[in-house]
Amino acid sequence: MMEVTESARAPHPGPAHRLTSNSDVSTTALKGQRCATSPHSGSCLRWISMSLLPVIVVHGGAGYVPRKHADLSCKGVSEAARAGYVCLRDGLSAMDAVVKAVTLLEDNPVFNAGRGSVLTHKGTVEMDAIVMDGCTLSSGAVSAVKRIANPVQLARLVMEKTSHLCLTAEGASQFARDMGIPEVDEESLITDYSRMRWRQNLSPDANPVESQMGKMGTVGAVAVDLQGNIACATSTGGLINQMEGRVGDTACIGCGAYADNKVGAVSPTGHGEAIMKITLSRLILFYMEQGKSAKEAADLGLAYMLDRVQGLGGVVVVDPKGNWAARFNSLQMAWAAAQGDEVHYGLYAGERFTQDIQQDEAQS
Amino acid sequence: MMEVTESARAPHPGPAHRLTSNSDVSTTALKGQRCATSPHSGSCLRWISMSLLPVIVVHGGAGYVPRKHADLSCKGVSEAARAGYVCLRDGLSAMDAVVKAVTLLEDNPVFNAGRGSVLTHKGTVEMDAIVMDGCTLSSGAVSAVKRIANPVQLARLVMEKTSHLCLTAEGASQFARDMGIPEVDEESLITDYSRMRWRQNLSPDANPVESQMGKMGTVGAVAVDLQGNIACATSTGGLINQMEGRVGDTACIGCGAYADNKVGAVSPTGHGEAIMKITLSRLILFYMEQGKSAKEAADLGLAYMLDRVQGLGGVVVVDPKGNWAARFNSLQMAWAAAQGDEVHYGLYAGERFTQDIQQDEAQS
Repeated sequence: MMEVTESARAPHPGPAHRLTSNSDVSTTALKGQRCATSPHSGSCLRWISMSLLPVIVVHGGAGYVPRKHADLSCKGVSEAARAGYVCLRDGLSAMDAVVKAVTLLEDNPVFNAGRGSVLTHKGTVEMDAIVMDGCTLSSGAVSAVKRIANPVQLARLVMEKTSHLCLTAEGASQFARDMGIPEVDEESLITDYSRMRWRQNLSPDANPVESQMGKMGTVGAVAVDLQGNIACATSTGGLINQMEGRVGDTACIGCGAYADNKVGAVSPTGHGEAIMKITLSRLILFYMEQGKSAKEAADLGLAYMLDRVQGLGGVVVVDPKGNWAARFNSLQMAWAAAQGDEVHYGLYAGERFTQDIQQDEAQS
Repeated sequence: MMEVTESARAPHPGPAHRLTSNSDVSTTALKGQRCATSPHSGSCLRWISMSLLPVIVVHGGAGYVPRKHADLSCKGVSEAARAGYVCLRDGLSAMDAVVKAVTLLEDNPVFNAGRGSVLTHKGTVEMDAIVMDGCTLSSGAVSAVKRIANPVQLARLVMEKTSHLCLTAEGASQFARDMGIPEVDEESLITDYSRMRWRQNLSPDANPVESQMGKMGTVGAVAVDLQGNIACATSTGGLINQMEGRVGDTACIGCGAYADNKVGAVSPTGHGEAIMKITLSRLILFYMEQGKSAKEAADLGLAYMLDRVQGLGGVVVVDPKGNWAARFNSLQMAWAAAQGDEVHYGLYAGERFTQDIQQDEAQS
């Protein structure tokens, strides 16, 4: 995989919390234009296929990614996008692709989902996940679920095997047992890094929300398959040192995810409570229904969240034609998009690297 | 309290599932017009005060209300609306008013919330509740909470005493203990009627969703206070014989409730999963942002839910000026509105009775 050089990850020159204006991080720049901003011109100086389907866009969380995690984050989201794209290219559904991508991100300890989840105040792991099918508006979610390796797969089973949309806590665990999902040792989900951050935030003067800006690595994906069906998935370990039983935006349809074949799909990341207060995913799709592009709608939604409830975050968005955007007003968001046999990815605002998907497949 | 005669409760003449066209069930008909449809002309033949604030509108659930519960349902919602209105008239906040009204409905065994909740498949009581403050967009919710008399009050404490928006299951119970909320005996929440319905739906060929049409008594309220602040609250025992840990629309912001001082507030009732798929509360407020009246937006939202996901339900809606609507496309919805020192209420489509709030206060 292509290395992202340190010089290419120079911080955004403007205020850290200003809405980014990196117009390259969307498909707008991919239609018959040369990519002018990447330092890796060798991989960029060619024309993109005009066929925009299939497409998948993933994120690995908005916030600040520690330098030692930067390369791993970029590698993780790129690999997840590539794996999801391979599903789509092979004719599998958008739902298959987003669940595949999010499963890889849950398995990757760099991200705050599955293995690598942040800990609750009690030092336990409680996870939320959701999937949504844009064709039927069906959805499945789990909240505050414990000892499951891949909550996103359990969320999909809630959608497919029950008449409900969300199962929580012990009820979700019971359902997992009924489905034959193995229960894993909680320790297998906990990394040294997440335990260190938990300890740091146990002191009375700690500010877990502030601290979370250092690791908001909720993960998610949106995709459109060859049939034009749209799906999304989001998964998270929640907020550092959160109260037992806290449910954030991820398990809440319209907040932590929304997909509608007629409009598009959104998977967000950021401060969950702020995302919930403005139902960010549904809001962005409303803007798209009113004629805004994926990028314009994402920027409007994020600006509204900052203005109305002082919330920071990011989103990945697709529309039914395969136009996509990865936008954020936090300092960073690890993201990757696979389309037209290329993988695009970035971490800082204004940053986009591109490589052949075959090259990526061969090297990974 | 005025008796609602049986003749006045004749079923709506059209198909049971058709969107109601009862244009009288909104403030549109209250501005200097005579109420023409009520059989109780004595209480209707007078002019309504032009001052629309404060106002509170409550519902006791959409679906089919058994005849033996009809009078009690109408009485229950009327009393809740009156009690909330007294709060507002005394200068308390919209939040105080909706929590007061919903607390009374939770305490009333006629409704599917608090005491009188339907039972899970296991025969237990798991409740969801939410409040939202339209000034700050703050919200608090509890999901799958057990052995609490008034989940709506616990939801308010989540909003006011934590940095989170939702606590679930045992985490919510732990928070209740921390707040000094007494744990009640689960039996005290269970009525003979809810246990009978649970038993009926244990057979393998039972259809709990269909059966729920017989008792969808989720409760909710929306209000605007004298300062123009808007709030809403919703509370439910969920779906008959639901899986353990099932969370429906009520605990999900944008689905089971939404309030925004700039637009209005919605509290819905009906099939929770359908409400979630289209984020009904936020959808109706989007229509209002686009210039629709509370009534028009409610009807559009309910029609969309029926068309897109074949869901039935109802809503109570207010806007910042105090215009309100109580709309449903189920056979019935117990609702009541208090405004201008009058209480309006109804159960079937096209039905509205009106009485002086003083008369109600004296008789109840």
